[in-house]
Amino acid sequence: MGKTGIRTVCKVDFDRPASEQPYLHNRWHPDIPFAGSIRDGETVKIECLDWTGGQIKNNDSADDVKNVDLTRVHYLSGPFEIENAEPGDLLLVEIMDVQPFQDQPWGFTGIFDRRNGGGFLDEIYPSAAKAIWDFEGIYCTSRHIPHVKFAGLIHPGILGCAPSAEVLERWNTREAALIAANRLDREVALPPQPLSVHAGSADNGLKQKVGREGARTIPGRPEHGGNCDIKNLSRGSKVYLPVHVPGAKFSVGDLHFSQGDGEISFCGAIEMAGVITINFSVIKKGVTNLGLKSPIYIPGPVEPQFGPVRYIYFEGFSVDESGRQHYMDVTVAYRQTTLRCIEYLRRFGYSDYQIYLLLSCAPVQGHVAGIVDIPNACTTLGLPMDIFDFDISPSAAAAVGAGRGRRPALNMGRCAFETGRTSGEVRVGGGGAGGGQVSFGGGLTYR
Amino acid sequence: MGKTGIRTVCKVDFDRPASEQPYLHNRWHPDIPFAGSIRDGETVKIECLDWTGGQIKNNDSADDVKNVDLTRVHYLSGPFEIENAEPGDLLLVEIMDVQPFQDQPWGFTGIFDRRNGGGFLDEIYPSAAKAIWDFEGIYCTSRHIPHVKFAGLIHPGILGCAPSAEVLERWNTREAALIAANRLDREVALPPQPLSVHAGSADNGLKQKVGREGARTIPGRPEHGGNCDIKNLSRGSKVYLPVHVPGAKFSVGDLHFSQGDGEISFCGAIEMAGVITINFSVIKKGVTNLGLKSPIYIPGPVEPQFGPVRYIYFEGFSVDESGRQHYMDVTVAYRQTTLRCIEYLRRFGYSDYQIYLLLSCAPVQGHVAGIVDIPNACTTLGLPMDIFDFDISPSAAAAVGAGRGRRPALNMGRCAFETGRTSGEVRVGGGGAGGGQVSFGGGLTYR
Amino acid sequence: MGKTGIRTVCKVDFDRPASEQPYLHNRWHPDIPFAGSIRDGETVKIECLDWTGGQIKNNDSADDVKNVDLTRVHYLSGPFEIENAEPGDLLLVEIMDVQPFQDQPWGFTGIFDRRNGGGFLDEIYPSAAKAIWDFEGIYCTSRHIPHVKFAGLIHPGILGCAPSAEVLERWNTREAALIAANRLDREVALPPQPLSVHAGSADNGLKQKVGREGARTIPGRPEHGGNCDIKNLSRGSKVYLPVHVPGAKFSVGDLHFSQGDGEISFCGAIEMAGVITINFSVIKKGVTNLGLKSPIYIPGPVEPQFGPVRYIYFEGFSVDESGRQHYMDVTVAYRQTTLRCIEYLRRFGYSDYQIYLLLSCAPVQGHVAGIVDIPNACTTLGLPMDIFDFDISPSAAAAVGAGRGRRPALNMGRCAFETGRTSGEVRVGGGGAGGGQVSFGGGLTYR
Amino acid sequence: MGKTGIRTVCKVDFDRPASEQPYLHNRWHPDIPFAGSIRDGETVKIECLDWTGGQIKNNDSADDVKNVDLTRVHYLSGPFEIENAEPGDLLLVEIMDVQPFQDQPWGFTGIFDRRNGGGFLDEIYPSAAKAIWDFEGIYCTSRHIPHVKFAGLIHPGILGCAPSAEVLERWNTREAALIAANRLDREVALPPQPLSVHAGSADNGLKQKVGREGARTIPGRPEHGGNCDIKNLSRGSKVYLPVHVPGAKFSVGDLHFSQGDGEISFCGAIEMAGVITINFSVIKKGVTNLGLKSPIYIPGPVEPQFGPVRYIYFEGFSVDESGRQHYMDVTVAYRQTTLRCIEYLRRFGYSDYQIYLLLSCAPVQGHVAGIVDIPNACTTLGLPMDIFDFDISPSAAAAVGAGRGRRPALNMGRCAFETGRTSGEVRVGGGGAGGGQVSFGGGLTYR
Repeated sequence: MGKTGIRTVCKVDFDRPASEQPYLHNRWHPDIPFAGSIRDGETVKIECLDWTGGQIKNNDSADDVKNVDLTRVHYLSGPFEIENAEPGDLLLVEIMDVQPFQDQPWGFTGIFDRRNGGGFLDEIYPSAAKAIWDFEGIYCTSRHIPHVKFAGLIHPGILGCAPSAEVLERWNTREAALIAANRLDREVALPPQPLSVHAGSADNGLKQKVGREGARTIPGRPEHGGNCDIKNLSRGSKVYLPVHVPGAKFSVGDLHFSQGDGEISFCGAIEMAGVITINFSVIKKGVTNLGLKSPIYIPGPVEPQFGPVRYIYFEGFSVDESGRQHYMDVTVAYRQTTLRCIEYLRRFGYSDYQIYLLLSCAPVQGHVAGIVDIPNACTTLGLPMDIFDFDISPSAAAAVGAGRGRRPALNMGRCAFETGRTSGEVRVGGGGAGGGQVSFGGGLTYR
Repeated sequence: MGKTGIRTVCKVDFDRPASEQPYLHNRWHPDIPFAGSIRDGETVKIECLDWTGGQIKNNDSADDVKNVDLTRVHYLSGPFEIENAEPGDLLLVEIMDVQPFQDQPWGFTGIFDRRNGGGFLDEIYPSAAKAIWDFEGIYCTSRHIPHVKFAGLIHPGILGCAPSAEVLERWNTREAALIAANRLDREVALPPQPLSVHAGSADNGLKQKVGREGARTIPGRPEHGGNCDIKNLSRGSKVYLPVHVPGAKFSVGDLHFSQGDGEISFCGAIEMAGVITINFSVIKKGVTNLGLKSPIYIPGPVEPQFGPVRYIYFEGFSVDESGRQHYMDVTVAYRQTTLRCIEYLRRFGYSDYQIYLLLSCAPVQGHVAGIVDIPNACTTLGLPMDIFDFDISPSAAAAVGAGRGRRPALNMGRCAFETGRTSGEVRVGGGGAGGGQVSFGGGLTYR
Repeated sequence: MGKTGIRTVCKVDFDRPASEQPYLHNRWHPDIPFAGSIRDGETVKIECLDWTGGQIKNNDSADDVKNVDLTRVHYLSGPFEIENAEPGDLLLVEIMDVQPFQDQPWGFTGIFDRRNGGGFLDEIYPSAAKAIWDFEGIYCTSRHIPHVKFAGLIHPGILGCAPSAEVLERWNTREAALIAANRLDREVALPPQPLSVHAGSADNGLKQKVGREGARTIPGRPEHGGNCDIKNLSRGSKVYLPVHVPGAKFSVGDLHFSQGDGEISFCGAIEMAGVITINFSVIKKGVTNLGLKSPIYIPGPVEPQFGPVRYIYFEGFSVDESGRQHYMDVTVAYRQTTLRCIEYLRRFGYSDYQIYLLLSCAPVQGHVAGIVDIPNACTTLGLPMDIFDFDISPSAAAAVGAGRGRRPALNMGRCAFETGRTSGEVRVGGGGAGGGQVSFGGGLTYR
Repeated sequence: MGKTGIRTVCKVDFDRPASEQPYLHNRWHPDIPFAGSIRDGETVKIECLDWTGGQIKNNDSADDVKNVDLTRVHYLSGPFEIENAEPGDLLLVEIMDVQPFQDQPWGFTGIFDRRNGGGFLDEIYPSAAKAIWDFEGIYCTSRHIPHVKFAGLIHPGILGCAPSAEVLERWNTREAALIAANRLDREVALPPQPLSVHAGSADNGLKQKVGREGARTIPGRPEHGGNCDIKNLSRGSKVYLPVHVPGAKFSVGDLHFSQGDGEISFCGAIEMAGVITINFSVIKKGVTNLGLKSPIYIPGPVEPQFGPVRYIYFEGFSVDESGRQHYMDVTVAYRQTTLRCIEYLRRFGYSDYQIYLLLSCAPVQGHVAGIVDIPNACTTLGLPMDIFDFDISPSAAAAVGAGRGRRPALNMGRCAFETGRTSGEVRVGGGGAGGGQVSFGGGLTYR
């Protein structure tokens, strides 16, 4: 009588390479064999590796981040058969809990090198960097970003059901068209890549097929969600996922202890291995009945709460750092907003790279504010003051720094860089249409 | 002993045209004469017209919206001299209250005609439409969008200090460059326009100068904020505004009873005339000391609160409605997100135009979720369930509509259209690179 | 088309004595004539005097508080006929707004003299005292309690429908029994009192009857609510009130700009005159159908929000200040809890009387914690740190005060006392069963 | 490099009787030997049994609750030496996490028999009853109270430092005085009881001394906190505890998955075994410097959140269920408030015993509202609507139940009773001073 525990459908093994564990895979493809079966209505635990499959270590060098092998990511747990699920149904996924492993209470946030992965601000901050986070219960702290402590808004970066062959083809077609049209000096999408493919328990032939056709797991996609990286899709959330293949083939991974809106440094959440507990139920014909083209979700009740008066909000507009005017470009506006926050926090003694890491993983609120006032989109970024153990309010900001009568900034140490470096490169460049304004770089040509 | 009331520095007159009231103006220019003087530390009341200066009426036709004269907007109150304020200072503006006029308890939300103003979704919804909102204390309701009631997150759409001549020139230069480069079939920015210019109490010569040089008030701009349209910049907020000219020349207007993130239909907030109460204080050398390039703000404590579990979040990605893949385009992603919400609410009996209006003005949360997972940006839109007087949860959504065993949708009436129309035009078009997907339009070429 | 304003059913007159205004009354009695009529479904504005009818002035002496005439209170607006309401129905009262008068932006908090009114801590703090609060929009501040500013959680202290003759008799009977049994050295209830009676527009004979029979308005009562003094029954709240007489005879008054849980100094809210906007609707047979013996309510959405981490919670138990153990007495426990908070804040430079006033009116959270662990009830009081403009956290508390290396407390001025006094009396007395403990008084014999 | 886990200072053993485990104890006494040592600044894990030491089983009979041996409770983990802690210091305890054991995902809520333990409503509900709760991640559900699910506000019921000999003597003296004065037909306090004493690793002589002198753990006490049963003292909370003996002798236990304000059924929380993670730091001379007589705490950031509009608040006054008027008695008022809630929920099909259990353990908000309006104290109880999977709003309440046009209530099954019973006894009795009112019992003489 009574329950004695919750079934674990997938156990990961830290003593074996991720690529040899049959319950994992790193491509989206309808033919990857089931890794287990879950009943309609059942609650199970699913263990997950960190998204890189253990490439990043708990140390003080960012060499591993700089040299990360992105053909191997993300290692997802699954795909699981959900009994009764058929194409056209919705899979209701209720996230009952997410926890790190008790004996591995740490995670990492990385800034990828501009030439290997990059990130939202890589034109300005091109170097690799890393922060290690230690977990103690609900809280995390980092020796690489001192004087910060916050509660995790813990969540999976990736969850979704496998695409059907038709959906997969649609993905590959439209992304190939983008790649073909690319004239930027950077990758704009990742085509199927038959390198380091992991197709779960697939035999060799199938594995090669998955390598040729399988969609990369980096982007989220409207038809199934996938790597949506939504920070509030946390404990207690209910997600409604379209089912495209019989049995749903649900996969999950890329667990985050915390993330800020945008996850701006790409490897930007506090990435971790851990266990997710999920209740599954099938809503028959739900896609049709609800007319859903993309997942929807209802957040859970236990988000960390800061009162509204405990946020500083930064504003940014679609005028780039060279002073160039863009037309209603929210991406440009949000980049400016994050730069305003970096400039603000810098005066407290943090390096730009530390702040870039912090804004990626702390629970900052990124809002679309005004999107109709031509030519300027406006976005805001809300920074919670209570994650710092010192006062970062504007009056405190005005009183710190070099200058008579000011308090010196705290010693903030530094984040991890590649071996031999003690700071990251910053590309501060010249002017632009806007003229006199102090500005960064001149070459954000990729939009 | 004790106070007997708060000084009103600007009274508007509903019996005179806005253009004849000397305390108003509709361009940004450093030479517009002061409309009054406010002491450092003083709290004052400032009356404001609605942003169109009374062009939109409380009736059931959208003719006024369709034919709105946008050369006349926005009518701002000011500019006010703030004693002691000098260039390089910050003006700390604390919004003590915003209220509609007691004898005009109503506001409006409009969708502009695509050929006169347009909006975020004008490729799909090109017709003019309107909803009138009635205010009763903290709440609003609309005869044009039944079964909805919500508390106002009341705020000014526009506040800012006048640009210096140098800043103004920078604006005009960079926006002219954008206009010159435009190859889209739509206006991308608005140059100075010597038509319907209102320069406060300026004499004729100055007024003509302001017309030639003065920046339009439509866009927010990084250097001073202006039309930032931030929904949470509400009662109790403290805004830190850079001062560019002696005396600050602070102006305010475009009061909103409520707005959703993005204010997507452009005339999308609940626009109203009213009174704003502000406390002003000058932070000497604040721009320098804080290194601010754009305004920052701290929200107030009385935002309407819905628990996280009372939101439905919609996800959208940078694949447009024709199936075309865009590269990390948050603007495209947010448009998709709003379309997902329109599709969802449609089944409850609302027309798309009603929902487009509602998402513009109700307190929906628009978040940047993931902005680094190439090629797809992901954004979310949170819709509070408690603004409806019926159940809009997914289970209710699945049970409503045509079909055996379903409840019919409620009678939702209609919003206002131009005289003679009972519905708005919807451009549903075919295909695209993505193929089979049902999609709207094919021509969102303007990005 | 459209509304032009909301009907005001009751206008108060500041140039006439409250006792001469026919829309007011100060007793509960079923025969007091209607002061106006309101339709089922209608929203109206009702003006209210402060509860004392103007006895307390905006000055720096507490003489008026000390000598207040409590036979005259509370001046309520009404009673109003609600069309269609009959005994057994519920009256659904939705509070759309509460505002002070624009030209009287102030209120008061008083501590009554122990011999005239008293309060929750009058054994310890027996003197009269007063603080005047100035309103600026959503915020209030006081020259008598410096360094504090907070947003109002504005609400009516009193609302309810008139008792039937039967209900009134029940009240009088049970309260008379308590008075008859009283052996404490203080008043325990107030019988009908034919002094300073105001029965609205009643003729003389009826007025005398009301004086003989009418229930005093001081206590809330389960059958109708009345003076419930619930701080969160604020804007947007929906209250369900039992109807006892035809037409409901609804009255309202005792408007509070803000109040703390307990309203501990009796005249403890920020008392004010103002305007309440209410929507009324009748739920036929609601009392029967819902089986309600007392009102219930659903709060509104715009309460001031502080995150949980921004409260300091004090714990108190049912051991009184003389060290005597009481049995499961929440009243004793809550008194101890408030004393713990007074002791804490005292070190920042405030006098006990200032803190007593502040805890009465600021939005402190008073919770029943444990009520079953014999013999000790435990209650908690949550004090929001963000209402102070300086740091009151425990680490700041440890660093302030007399002593080497400490910061001196701020100059906190003083609250108002009776003419000639500059401080209030404090009864610090000796020992008790508990022995060594420093304690107050020895004579809290009234429980 | 990096941490590999957090030290566990106390492991409990489910295969041995609690009374044989040397890291546990069930009395407060300064001489109980240290169970381990913790460094100033260290974070550790402490395992705890449920408060009864395993007496209550996961089954469908309340026999175990009825026959519980209360001389054995509470089994606390400790006492732990905190290095550097001395009398006069404060021990800052930061609760980093609380979790049930992974392989025991369940807890229990009990109503004690009136003759063995009793509870807040035992005059009316005298029978023993029980509900078993199953945990799935953050959520709990019960087969004994269907259609309810909520997130745990998980916390320790008990934490505190050992009393000094002097403090212990004060406790015993004042509680003995209460016992001596008792004229009620029930126990009012529990004297030292040399039965089933567990004094950790004490030798026999010491154990007998602890039995003779040791304070029972049932009540919280002002000098050290102890069994304060504060529901919001949850994850992330910082508690400041006075230190009375060298090394602090900190103990913790009585873990609760969730509790309502008041924990009204005594065994009223969701009681469980589990693990608490705590960070300890010593604030030297903190008691003196802060002048603390009782613990204070600052809540953590991850409480479950419901918006204010999602609560139904019940009001109760100090008029008891026989109609008798009490003087300012918050205990009576809170009892009435809970009865109002029971009456309300009853119509949805729950039995009174199910509701009594539910209000004990679900996160209901119990507030002191008005405590000065003689003779009536007013308290409120806020019931979150979102813990039910059906609509409990007043309009739903009016539509359910027996009667034409109403929906029948759901089948709510039943909670566990003693073997052979299928329902609990309810003492509904007659009349009282209040007359006609339907009322319960007539004999709540114990106040």
